Amino acid sequence: MKKDLEGLEKALGTSFKEQGLLETALTHRSYINEHRGYALDHNERLEFLGDAVLELVVTEYLFHQYPNPEGELTAWRAALVRGEMLAKVSRELGVEKYLMMSRGESKDTGRAREYLLANACEAIIGAIYLDKGYEDAKDFILGRIVTHIGEVFDKKLFVDPKSHFQEKAQEMVSITPTYREHESVGPDHNRVFVVGVYLGDELVATGEGPSKQEAQRNAAKAALEKKGWDK
Amino acid sequence: MKKDLEGLEKALGTSFKEQGLLETALTHRSYINEHRGYALDHNERLEFLGDAVLELVVTEYLFHQYPNPEGELTAWRAALVRGEMLAKVSRELGVEKYLMMSRGESKDTGRAREYLLANACEAIIGAIYLDKGYEDAKDFILGRIVTHIGEVFDKKLFVDPKSHFQEKAQEMVSITPTYREHESVGPDHNRVFVVGVYLGDELVATGEGPSKQEAQRNAAKAALEKKGWDK
Repeated sequence: MKKDLEGLEKALGTSFKEQGLLETALTHRSYINEHRGYALDHNERLEFLGDAVLELVVTEYLFHQYPNPEGELTAWRAALVRGEMLAKVSRELGVEKYLMMSRGESKDTGRAREYLLANACEAIIGAIYLDKGYEDAKDFILGRIVTHIGEVFDKKLFVDPKSHFQEKAQEMVSITPTYREHESVGPDHNRVFVVGVYLGDELVATGEGPSKQEAQRNAAKAALEKKGWDK
Repeated sequence: MKKDLEGLEKALGTSFKEQGLLETALTHRSYINEHRGYALDHNERLEFLGDAVLELVVTEYLFHQYPNPEGELTAWRAALVRGEMLAKVSRELGVEKYLMMSRGESKDTGRAREYLLANACEAIIGAIYLDKGYEDAKDFILGRIVTHIGEVFDKKLFVDPKSHFQEKAQEMVSITPTYREHESVGPDHNRVFVVGVYLGDELVATGEGPSKQEAQRNAAKAALEKKGWDK
């Protein structure tokens, strides 16, 4: 099935010389498994390439724009290129409806979809880079990703949410948050941990994730939102 | 103190328009602390930039050269750009005698020196990139770093040494290696763990590192060499 990609190209601000590159960038490995005769590859190699292009463009931008020490630039960069941000950019571009994935994947709209959207964003960058070169990929990254730098600063996305919540909790209510594991579900290779974050006895929020650490980070993030401390 | 950098430029195969960039790339933060009036910055920001340039050049090379899946390319890339490899490249270029560091640092020729040499290598790449652009940085990386790809394959540097040693031990002597902590020395913030790797009761080698994990990796690496299983 060849989707009409004109709408997406418009959103991306580019038209591909080699359309197959864009199609490949949108193809999840699960689609290949379901369509054995499919002529194209899945997007993982393009993602590998796009990730490195993204990294250099963002690095160069921060290096020239800010005189700050390397440690700060590294934290800001991590916030700009992390999965959540890239999934969001993909949504803004309307990538979701062009994704080629298995029927199983297409039903899973939670965390798995976010992951898939983030990877597609990197793969699209890889495709632009191959088709048009560094300058075009750079224009795309500056115009669509680096533009979120204000949000990174405003919402302190570069701060680890656990440190951020602890700081705020101490400032606002003089309490150090604690974390308790509520449950862990699923088989070993696909376990999901559910963790609650507390201020004293008050359960502020819960979070889940594939590790305790990530579940705690997600709980802290949810708690920051719930308390309105993420502004 | 302005060192004569001509010899180094020759080894690097480039001559800098802006010599200060190369000097900065060679300057460790400890040097600045000891020389308050020093006009230049230390090399950490250049290292931040150079690391991303290195990543893209190596990524692009592997992407075009090998049709392998992303997971394999990622492992090969990691082996090419890891600290040990970059420190080695710095030594090959004779970077060591040009490093500007505090008297304290200059006495420490062990692990700290390796780290410093690896960082200088990335900073030099950043300096070339700023002074001459992507193509020159790419030439340097292809000619000096990517050339070690044969060694990566021959010595299986892309395999975690613990898995590698375990595989070999099972193949050669049908024993699963075990690790025992021998001692840990130094204050909390600077602890060094010493670990031994055993085949049954035989102590094959020891390794040290700032974490148990890294000490085990180093022990496994030493054991592979000792047994001649690293060929």
